[in-house]
Amino acid sequence: MTRDRLYLFDTTLRDGAQTTGVDFSLADKQAIARLLDDLGVDYVEGGYPGANPLDTQFFSQPNGLKAKFTAFGMTKRAGRSAANDPGVAGLLDAQADAICFVAKSWDHQVRMALGISLEENLDSIRDSVATAKERGREVLVDCEHFFDGYKANPDYALACARTAYEAGARWVVLCDTNGGTLPHEVERIVGEVVETIPGSHLGIHAHNDTEQAVANSLAAVRAGVRQIQGTLNGLGERCGNANLTSLIPTLLLKPAYAERFEIGVDAARLENLTRISRKLDELLNRMPDHHAPYVGSSAFATKAGIHASAVMKDPSTYEHVPPESVGNRRKLLVSDQAGKSNILAELERLGLAIDKDDPRLSRLLGALKDKEAQGYAYEGADASFFLLAKRILGSVPEFFFVERFSVNVERRWNERGELGVFSEAIVKVKVGAEELISAAEGHGPVNALDTALRKDLGKYQSVIEDLKLIDYKVRVFQGGTDAVTRVLIEFQDAGGDRWATVGVSDNIIDASFQALVDSMTYKLLKAGAEV
Amino acid sequence: MTRDRLYLFDTTLRDGAQTTGVDFSLADKQAIARLLDDLGVDYVEGGYPGANPLDTQFFSQPNGLKAKFTAFGMTKRAGRSAANDPGVAGLLDAQADAICFVAKSWDHQVRMALGISLEENLDSIRDSVATAKERGREVLVDCEHFFDGYKANPDYALACARTAYEAGARWVVLCDTNGGTLPHEVERIVGEVVETIPGSHLGIHAHNDTEQAVANSLAAVRAGVRQIQGTLNGLGERCGNANLTSLIPTLLLKPAYAERFEIGVDAARLENLTRISRKLDELLNRMPDHHAPYVGSSAFATKAGIHASAVMKDPSTYEHVPPESVGNRRKLLVSDQAGKSNILAELERLGLAIDKDDPRLSRLLGALKDKEAQGYAYEGADASFFLLAKRILGSVPEFFFVERFSVNVERRWNERGELGVFSEAIVKVKVGAEELISAAEGHGPVNALDTALRKDLGKYQSVIEDLKLIDYKVRVFQGGTDAVTRVLIEFQDAGGDRWATVGVSDNIIDASFQALVDSMTYKLLKAGAEV
Repeated sequence: MTRDRLYLFDTTLRDGAQTTGVDFSLADKQAIARLLDDLGVDYVEGGYPGANPLDTQFFSQPNGLKAKFTAFGMTKRAGRSAANDPGVAGLLDAQADAICFVAKSWDHQVRMALGISLEENLDSIRDSVATAKERGREVLVDCEHFFDGYKANPDYALACARTAYEAGARWVVLCDTNGGTLPHEVERIVGEVVETIPGSHLGIHAHNDTEQAVANSLAAVRAGVRQIQGTLNGLGERCGNANLTSLIPTLLLKPAYAERFEIGVDAARLENLTRISRKLDELLNRMPDHHAPYVGSSAFATKAGIHASAVMKDPSTYEHVPPESVGNRRKLLVSDQAGKSNILAELERLGLAIDKDDPRLSRLLGALKDKEAQGYAYEGADASFFLLAKRILGSVPEFFFVERFSVNVERRWNERGELGVFSEAIVKVKVGAEELISAAEGHGPVNALDTALRKDLGKYQSVIEDLKLIDYKVRVFQGGTDAVTRVLIEFQDAGGDRWATVGVSDNIIDASFQALVDSMTYKLLKAGAEV
Repeated sequence: MTRDRLYLFDTTLRDGAQTTGVDFSLADKQAIARLLDDLGVDYVEGGYPGANPLDTQFFSQPNGLKAKFTAFGMTKRAGRSAANDPGVAGLLDAQADAICFVAKSWDHQVRMALGISLEENLDSIRDSVATAKERGREVLVDCEHFFDGYKANPDYALACARTAYEAGARWVVLCDTNGGTLPHEVERIVGEVVETIPGSHLGIHAHNDTEQAVANSLAAVRAGVRQIQGTLNGLGERCGNANLTSLIPTLLLKPAYAERFEIGVDAARLENLTRISRKLDELLNRMPDHHAPYVGSSAFATKAGIHASAVMKDPSTYEHVPPESVGNRRKLLVSDQAGKSNILAELERLGLAIDKDDPRLSRLLGALKDKEAQGYAYEGADASFFLLAKRILGSVPEFFFVERFSVNVERRWNERGELGVFSEAIVKVKVGAEELISAAEGHGPVNALDTALRKDLGKYQSVIEDLKLIDYKVRVFQGGTDAVTRVLIEFQDAGGDRWATVGVSDNIIDASFQALVDSMTYKLLKAGAEV
């Protein structure tokens, strides 16, 4: 049976930007766009060029994506032609493969929010779509509030959708903007729309306000649409957009969908899903949702004793899909059989391969669990994991020992009577028989400490001198006064190699110190320094 | 039209106990049971008495709940009668109104996990139900893995369900134990089951492994079941159980359900939902999900400027239900995408209402954009926004002035020769004509600074003394050496009021300092302190 092609449209960088507490820098957007491309989505909606200066920049050069890079914006204002509308011009100036216009499709909104006639609204749609098409773009139209609009005035909502389609839009997207429509309503309404507009040109854009955005998206597909709009990790304002991180595995792994539809993501790319989802959380400094379907760290964790033996005999008895298919792993909280194979693979990758029956493996697993219970996370800290492993499997020389450090941050007046904040650090290090004491200033306490630590390391100075601290991330959890701080530091050396280390403490300076020392030790090991 | 009665069965204290990182104490269970009763659920499943010592205690006395207090446990083992089964005895000893037996209903599981014959399993169900019924308990049977079992061997799965029903179970609950069944499959299968067992005696127990537990529960109701099992806040192992916090408002506020079904929760109790949800998070020391449907702090928050003016004219245009109906509130976010109307609304909410044509509004917008370009974000920092606004629209008194602070973090030996990291802060503050100098230790530099700042504030000491720092968040961006650090601090006072402030600097101590000072100033303003 030939499968229908189902298209995935990602709006993480546009609708996802509305998430409370999320602010994308230009670098963030570029990195995320590449992640999305790696995953295999068909469209990447990058933002609103013309209206948003950062997005104008984002769309100012070729993006190099395989996906169709899409610019979002409003249909022309009433009273002007699309060709003379500055907003539309901003969209047309953008280096985009496609333009997605958002249009009103609820009569009440047209009158109240736009203050124009129903006919003028249809004209705005028609003219905007036609103009963009003439200029060689693929055109999509998001019919805003479509389902509420259809319930209030089905003829008008349908007229908006049809106008878009007849003007040449490749896709007419039915949006549940308020997120309150129920799956059976979506299915019924879409079932009526496809009598007028072919499902091959229809899309669904759902929001999670009743916790059914995923179900609404699938209901729409069952009723005929062939494009799903959503975001990674369910980002989006209020309760989020439809979660592509939950939808993609369902579409690929559940026969009810996999046998009927083909999507741009294949089994191999699906195995990257967990990694991509976590990378996004890291980029945005967001706490990962451990209970997220498919990719959460607890998604395949079973606590009850009665399950564990059964799981190991036949995982499919207790797992609805194999965790490896999405790049996740089984977590048996009673015994960590699956954990062992993960570690072995990682050790091999780091050049520390050992036999699976080596007794030191259990010690390493135990040390890991211990550290993780304290708040350490080695997922983004490969160099710290390497050191932890090497200490158990072999040994790590003590190249240097920090006997003492003192970091001071002071708000005081300078010689011109201006108030400022100053940071200094003093460090006392033992390198072999030498005792070295260094002082340094910095723009902050961690910068001061890092500078002092790497100012004079005796015989090793030339090895660690060229290191550059390129990223510094802080996460404080178990909030309030019992807070535990985890610091992640990334370094780069002159050769271009990069590595990351982690430190945990209730004291942020101490946590940073641990990560800095790990980093320097790692570099010395890597460089083959001798004690 | 007469409405059908739909029953809500809460398993927060039993299935919810499987959540990773959650451990209920006896006091927790008692407090949560009362919360659930306040909400109005029909059944509270308290745990597994006999098997779990804490639960045995929990069920050892009358509970005083209006809801039916339910004990959970396994059907009798093969080879004994129910009357002679110690597990069943443990359930019968419990002071419970109802007993919920979990039974296998997937032939593969019966053979593999239990190692008994299909007939013996049916016998275990029959005998357990009959025995409990004889002893005056209402009986429920959870048919474990029902949907997977039905797909593999529909006759057997149905036989298990029917056996339970014919033996006298008040409810036969169809469980999607692995969480992988899709809504349209649930609807189809339940539709077939109701041909054998009346829907009035059927329940649904869904899990969220494809992010469709809520949709699965509603699909089952549409197909005929009249009991929904779930947990508050979607607690539960792996990806959680069906989320009653999302289901209850949908059942009460969406006509598609409210017109057909009556539940034990009414509109008045529904207004407690947000409070109850947050109380549960607090009890379990879990980070609240700001994006949770209905009850999340962002559930009714809108960021884009284009929406705010429309929302204020007619909230139903943008809100699928009124936030007050679930005890939540509308939040118009202040952000770099904010337009004038957003700010005006927020100012009104903060008691700083001004006219939309007031020239100071533009100055405020300018100041806001300026600060945001430096890295400030006011979305989660309402108190800092308040101060920023008040400074422009009026004035904020200078209650105190920090002339100097010095924060020191030192790694050194203590009197026992052990290496440790110590933090101290000295603060010099001017309060009116008084100059006060205080020193404090802390477990980290920010804690030391906060303690020192609030150790002696002269005439204001009593006002700021009871403040508690309840959350501290750090975000470092524009990574590496040009890093800008943004700190968000949340405080709570003795009255239970909470507010958040923000600070930005390339120095994390300085950023924290700004947020701390803002917080104290805000509290003094709020308390009507006089300069």
